Amino acid sequence: MMNDNQALNIDIDELINELTSSDFMLPETFQGLNAYQWASIFESLLNSQRLLLWQSVPAELKSSVLSEMREDARGHFLSELSQTNIEEAVVTGSNTEVVEIFDSLPEKTIVRLIKKLAPDSQSQVETSLSYTSDQVGRYANQDVYTIASAAKVNDVLQELKTEEHFQDSHAYVVIDGHGTYVGEVFINELLAAEGAQTINELVHKADTCISSNLSLLEASNLVRGSQRSLLPVVDEQGRFVGNFSIQDALDVFQEHYESQLAHLGQVSDEDLYAPILLSARRRAVWLGINLLTAFLASAVIGLFDKVLIEVVALAVLMPIVASMGGITGSQTLTLAIRGIATGQLNSSNFNYLRRKEVIVAALNGLVWALVVGAIAYVWFDNPLVAIILALALIINMLVASICGIVIPRLLDRVGIDPALAGSVILTTITDVVGFMVFLGGASVIFLS
Amino acid sequence: MMNDNQALNIDIDELINELTSSDFMLPETFQGLNAYQWASIFESLLNSQRLLLWQSVPAELKSSVLSEMREDARGHFLSELSQTNIEEAVVTGSNTEVVEIFDSLPEKTIVRLIKKLAPDSQSQVETSLSYTSDQVGRYANQDVYTIASAAKVNDVLQELKTEEHFQDSHAYVVIDGHGTYVGEVFINELLAAEGAQTINELVHKADTCISSNLSLLEASNLVRGSQRSLLPVVDEQGRFVGNFSIQDALDVFQEHYESQLAHLGQVSDEDLYAPILLSARRRAVWLGINLLTAFLASAVIGLFDKVLIEVVALAVLMPIVASMGGITGSQTLTLAIRGIATGQLNSSNFNYLRRKEVIVAALNGLVWALVVGAIAYVWFDNPLVAIILALALIINMLVASICGIVIPRLLDRVGIDPALAGSVILTTITDVVGFMVFLGGASVIFLS
Repeated sequence: MMNDNQALNIDIDELINELTSSDFMLPETFQGLNAYQWASIFESLLNSQRLLLWQSVPAELKSSVLSEMREDARGHFLSELSQTNIEEAVVTGSNTEVVEIFDSLPEKTIVRLIKKLAPDSQSQVETSLSYTSDQVGRYANQDVYTIASAAKVNDVLQELKTEEHFQDSHAYVVIDGHGTYVGEVFINELLAAEGAQTINELVHKADTCISSNLSLLEASNLVRGSQRSLLPVVDEQGRFVGNFSIQDALDVFQEHYESQLAHLGQVSDEDLYAPILLSARRRAVWLGINLLTAFLASAVIGLFDKVLIEVVALAVLMPIVASMGGITGSQTLTLAIRGIATGQLNSSNFNYLRRKEVIVAALNGLVWALVVGAIAYVWFDNPLVAIILALALIINMLVASICGIVIPRLLDRVGIDPALAGSVILTTITDVVGFMVFLGGASVIFLS
Repeated sequence: MMNDNQALNIDIDELINELTSSDFMLPETFQGLNAYQWASIFESLLNSQRLLLWQSVPAELKSSVLSEMREDARGHFLSELSQTNIEEAVVTGSNTEVVEIFDSLPEKTIVRLIKKLAPDSQSQVETSLSYTSDQVGRYANQDVYTIASAAKVNDVLQELKTEEHFQDSHAYVVIDGHGTYVGEVFINELLAAEGAQTINELVHKADTCISSNLSLLEASNLVRGSQRSLLPVVDEQGRFVGNFSIQDALDVFQEHYESQLAHLGQVSDEDLYAPILLSARRRAVWLGINLLTAFLASAVIGLFDKVLIEVVALAVLMPIVASMGGITGSQTLTLAIRGIATGQLNSSNFNYLRRKEVIVAALNGLVWALVVGAIAYVWFDNPLVAIILALALIINMLVASICGIVIPRLLDRVGIDPALAGSVILTTITDVVGFMVFLGGASVIFLS
C-alpha cells in the first residue's frame, strides 16, 4: 500500500536529515502542497522536528494544517508550539478551523485567543463552541455563500461571476431574512431562469437536513446515505448553521474506524510520537484490565491443582482449549459488532443469526475436536485425556459463539460501545469456561 | 450509535413480519428511498427475504441497489436471484454499476449478459473490465458530461441549461478531439467569459490526475489528499477514462477498514447472512492456523513437564506471562500497522520509535511485574516463583514490544499485509517466549 507521503513523492528521510542542518532549505517537492498533505507530513515527525519545519509552512496554510492533523498529534504539537505561533495561526483561520484547533487547547488559552478574533468570527466561533465536541453543530462549515430567498436571479448570477463566491458545488444555500434555511437552488436552473424571477420561485426544499444536535457519526451516516456531497445543518429554530460535507464524513468515519482498530488491539487511539510517559500510562490501563482477567483465569486453574499434579498433560494442553474458544468467540463478536453498527443485525434476525453462529461453531468444534483429540492421544497415549480435551473444546467453542453474539447486543442495549468492552469480556469468559470445563472434567475422571 | 436503518425510521422487524404475509404491501416509509438506503436494507435480510422484497424495488433503482450492496452480500443474493431478474437490472444500469454487478457474477453469466447491453455500453464496459478488480480504471465513472476544448462558451452555456447535463459539481471536464484529457473549466468562469471565447482559453490543467492502473486504495488516498471532491482518471495515452470521486474513495476506505477489523478479529470479511457451510469453511481456516500456534505453545510447555509436576503454581501462573506479553505486543503492533499505512512510521524515525516502544514496555513491565510478583508471593507463599514470574513478565513484554514494531515492518517490506499476518505471528512469539522463559527459568532454579 502506498501511503500519502509516497504518493506525493516526498522523502521524509531526506527531509529529516536536512531539518537538522543549519542552512535548512525547504525541498522543491514541498512547493504547492495543500494543508492535508502538510498535515500528513507533520504527523510523521517528532515534536522537535515539527517545530523546526513549522517555520516553512506558508502562513496562509498554518491554520488549515493544524485543523487537518489527527487530534492526538495536533494536541502534542500544540502543547510545544509557542503562544505567538498558535495565535498567528488562529487569527488567520476560518471559523471551522479555529474550532478544531481549540479542541486541542486548554480552556485558558481559548479564552485568551477568542478575544483576538474579528468580532464576526468571535460570535460565530462562540456559537460553534456552544455545541459539545461530539455534536455536528460544532463542526458545520459556516463559511458558505448563501443566497437570500427574496433576491432576483439576475443579481445572483452577477454575484456568482466574481471569484469571491466561488464554491465547490453546483447548489447554493437559500435562507430567508431571519436566517432560516429555505432550501437550495441549482446553478443550471439559475442559468435557465428569467432574470427578474426571485430565488423563492426556484428554490428546492432539501429532502434531508441534519439537526445540529446530532452526533458526528449520525450526521456522517446521513450524508453518506443521502448520496449527496453535502447536507445543510440547521438548529432547533430551523436556522441555517452551516454545511456538513462528505469530506467531513470521511474524516469522522476514519477516526471511528481507527479508534475501533486501536481498541481491538487493546490500545488507545494515540499519536505514535506521543510522549513516552503518556503512552506508558495510557497503555497501563489496558494492561491492568487484562491482568485482572488473566488472574481470574489463573484462579480457575488454581482450583484444580490436584489434578494438574496427577496428570501433567492437562497443563500442557489447557491453553489449546482457551485459545480455540477465544478465536471462535472473536469471530462471532467481530461480525456481530459490525452488524449492530450497520443495522444488519436486528431483533427479527437475531435468533436466526444466533442459531447460525452456534451451528457454525458446532461444525468447526466437531472437526477440530477430532483433530486435537487425535493428536493428544498420539502425543500422550492417554485416551481419557484426549476425550476430555475434545469435549471441552466443543463446549467452549459453543459457549464462545453464543457469547460472541449475545454480549455485543447486551452492551449496545445498555449504551456501552461493544467494540470497546466486548473483546475483554469475551476473552474472560472463554478462558474461565475453557479451564473450568477441561480441568473440572479431568478432576471428575481422574480424581474419583 | 444510530445505524442507517434507524436514521431512516425504517422498522426492519415490521418489514420482515409483513414480507411473509401473502398480501404484502410496501410500507409508506419506503417511498423515496435512494439506492444506498435500499442496499442497506437488503444487507439486513436473509436471502429468502431479499428475494421477496426485490419485487418492490423500483425498476430504475435495481442496478444501483445491487452496485451499492457490500460485495459479499451482493454475491450471495445474486447467486439466488433468477437470470431474468439479473438481466433486467443489468440492462438498465449505468456502466459503472454494471461493472460492479459483474464483479459478483460468474464468468459465464458475464459473457452472456454483456451481449445484451447497448453497443455503446458494451464497449465501455469491456474497457472497464480490461482492468483488474483492484485497479481504479475499472471503477472510474464514465457517465460524465465532457466539454470539447474547441467549443465556444455560448454553446456550452446553452447546453448546461438543459437538465440532461446537470451534475453535482462546479467544474466540467474538458477533452480534445482525440479524447485526451485537457483539464477543467469552472462554471463561474464560464459565466464571466465572453460568449465567443473557446473553452481552450479558460481551461485549467488539473494538478493531479489518477493513472488508471493505480490501485483503488492509492487512488482513494490521492483524492483524499487533493482536498477535492473528485479527480480525473486517465490512461497511459492520456485519454480521459472517467472520474473518481470522494464518495468512491469513502467506499474503498470503508471496505479497507472493515476488512482490517475482520482480520484482527480472526475472520474473513463475510456477509452475516452467508450460507452456514460457507461461513464454517472460511472460519475453519483461521481456526486451523490458530491451532498450529496453540500446539506450538503446548509443545513448549511439554518440554517442562518435570518442573510442572514439581511446582504446580507454575501451571497456574503461566497464562499470565503469555497474556501480558500478547497485549503489550498487540498494542505496539496496532500502532505500527497504522503508522506504516499512513506513512507516519518511516525509516528515519523507526529507530526512535523502536526505542520508545521498548522504554514504554520496560516501564509497564516493571510496574506490572511488581504487582504480579507481589500477588503471586502472597498467593503461593513462594518467593522464588514470584521472582521468576516477575522476571519472565518483564522479558516477555520487552520481546513483545520489539517484535510488535519489527514484524509489521518486515512483513510490509516483503509485500505481506501486516494487518493480516502480524497478529498471528506475534501471538505465537509471545506464547513461546513467555512459556519458555518462565518454565525454563523455573527448571533451572527448581530442578538443579
